Parts: sequence; C-alpha cells; structure tokens
Amino acid sequence: MSTEDTTSRRRGRRPAGQDTRAALLTAARAVFAENGYERATVRTIAARAGVDAAMVNHWFGGKEGLFAQAVLKLPFAPHELVTELRTGPDSELGYRIVRTFLTRWDGAGGSQFQALIRSVAGHEIAGSVLRQFFSGFFAEVIRGIGTDRPELRTTLCASQLLGMGLVRYVTEFEPLASAEVETLVTAVAPTLQRYLTGDID
Amino acid sequence: MSTEDTTSRRRGRRPAGQDTRAALLTAARAVFAENGYERATVRTIAARAGVDAAMVNHWFGGKEGLFAQAVLKLPFAPHELVTELRTGPDSELGYRIVRTFLTRWDGAGGSQFQALIRSVAGHEIAGSVLRQFFSGFFAEVIRGIGTDRPELRTTLCASQLLGMGLVRYVTEFEPLASAEVETLVTAVAPTLQRYLTGDID
Repeated sequence: MSTEDTTSRRRGRRPAGQDTRAALLTAARAVFAENGYERATVRTIAARAGVDAAMVNHWFGGKEGLFAQAVLKLPFAPHELVTELRTGPDSELGYRIVRTFLTRWDGAGGSQFQALIRSVAGHEIAGSVLRQFFSGFFAEVIRGIGTDRPELRTTLCASQLLGMGLVRYVTEFEPLASAEVETLVTAVAPTLQRYLTGDID
Repeated sequence: MSTEDTTSRRRGRRPAGQDTRAALLTAARAVFAENGYERATVRTIAARAGVDAAMVNHWFGGKEGLFAQAVLKLPFAPHELVTELRTGPDSELGYRIVRTFLTRWDGAGGSQFQALIRSVAGHEIAGSVLRQFFSGFFAEVIRGIGTDRPELRTTLCASQLLGMGLVRYVTEFEPLASAEVETLVTAVAPTLQRYLTGDID
C-alpha cells in the first residue's frame, strides 16, 4: 500500500491540493498497469483516486500529461512547457528546446532518465506512450511554424534529444556527460533547429 | 553449459576456425562477467577457450573488439569497419558513418539494438565499455583529420547515432522507424559531419 493511500485514509477525508495530485499519480500507475494506456480512462483513474475527473485536467492537462508524470516521471508538466518553448522567435526554438531539456533533466538527476530508458527498452507500452507523448507535444510546440514533413522532423528531434540524454545520463560518455549546459546548447541546438525548420532533404 | 563447450569436448580436440571464434565468444562472456572489463585479460580468455591468445587478435582485433562481439554483440567487426569508414573524402565521413550504422543495424534486426540499450541501461560495466569502445573506435576513424576537441565531437556523434538507433529500433517512432536508409542519411549525416569537422562552438 502506498504512502498516499495510508495518509488519506488516516485523515478520514478526501485529499486536496498536492494530496489530490499524489492520489491521482498513485491511481494512475495502478490503472495504467492494469489496463494499458489506451483502455485506461481519466474517469476510472479519478474514481480510483476518489477525486473529480476535472482534477486530471487541472493538474496534468489530460491523460497524456498524467501518464508522463505517473509512469514516465518526466521532470516537467508538458502543457506548461509548451507555452515556455513557444515564447520567442521560431529561429531560436532549437536553442530553447535543448536548453530546457538539459536544465530539467539535469535538475531531476541522471537516474531518472536512466529509469525512462529502462522503461522504454523493457516495456512496449512505455515506448508506445513516449511516442504518442512526443508527437503530441511537438505538434503543439511547432504548431503554426508550417514546415513540411512535421512527423519526420519530430522524430529526428526525438533522436537527438533522447540520444543526448542517453549519453549524458545513462552511458555517461565524457566530456559530454559533464559538459556545461551552454556548451551543449551551442553544439546541439543547430541540429534541432535544422530538424525543425531547416533543410532535411 | 553452452553448445560450443559440448561440441568441442565431444570431438576430443581443440576447436579451429569458426569453432575457435565461438569458443572465444563463450569464454569471453564468462570471463568479462566474472572479472569485469578492466581485469579480464586476453590471456585468461584464450586459456579458458583452450586456444592461443593470438587468436583474439586474429578474430577480433583485440580485447575491445572481443567485448564488442561477445557482450555488446555489435553486428560488425570494429577493426574492419575503421578501414571502410576511412576510405573516401573527409567531407563525406558523416555520410559514410550514418549509412554504415543504419545498414549494419537494420541487417541485424531491431531486437539486437534493443538488447544493447537494455545492457547499457542496466549494467554500468556495459555502459563503461561501450564508452571505451566508442572513443577508441572514433579515435581511429577521425585520426589525421585534425579537428579541435575530438573527445567532445566523438560523444556528440555518439549521442546522435545512439539516439537514432533508440528511436528506430527501440521506441520505434514513426516515420523514422520505417524510413528508407537514404532518407535518414540525407537528414542526419550533416549533423554527424558538423560534429566531426564543423563548427561546434
């Protein structure tokens, strides 16, 4: 039994605020594990957590965001990050993406990215949801930029970002693993920028 | 007990040719697992396989190549690949690397790359050896090109190549996972080329 379950029962009331968030995370892990991503519903998860289904949107922006936090344990709220990344010129989007990726994951610690990689390497469902998450997330980030082949561009970005995470946090190849964030932003951002808005064929 | 052990004992003689190679692979997996990469010696592995230590150089080009085949199960012989990659103009090295990477791993099948990722995500020793392998391999490939910061360039190349493998063979993000080799060579090779010989700061 999880800490959250015990706590909310002991208090004899429904959780609120951060407790709601924690209860949703616990319920989500159980429901996603039992039903898989597709068949898990926001309604079922909310009911299991004993909170209103609207709380899922409030705290996580929807099922995708809830999965991102509960199972993939991404160190950011996707729906908040989209706004942050879209603020600024399109010609510097690659820089903002690389800087944000490194800052968030550096902050979370390498073991969390390692867990993500283990998860997607070991469980088809995790890989499939990461894929859905990535494509949904990038569709929002690049909306309105109007480049050709957005899906290929999105997966090219994924390849460089996940690979950078793998080398920095999992295999820890030096000097990349210990390099300053800005050193990597300078080196890698032009790659993201070309994949997003440049010539790829 | 492995097939190779049984076979060589039944025949009552030391293995030769492909048998030697198989015996070395079996012995190497055991010795690397028991001693770790650093403390495992070519002499010990050869003795365990019942063959002359010179056979390690003959078949695998050294301890590093033996580990690459036995544990990482890379679908190529590193010491042969170096020659192949160095044949041609430096300005197209990135193209040759991306094309060769995709062709070899496509041929080996996605599950083999998945095993590699699981291995490096789960075992520190595998990550550490992949790092040693990568840096040794790239040092050979770029020898004489004379760019600054070769170690950072090597790890940047690793990040894009491993990430491309992760997305193509493990998480299978479409359309990258099913894209033609030449589509990806066109899109990704300029990245490798810049990391190898271009402006990274």
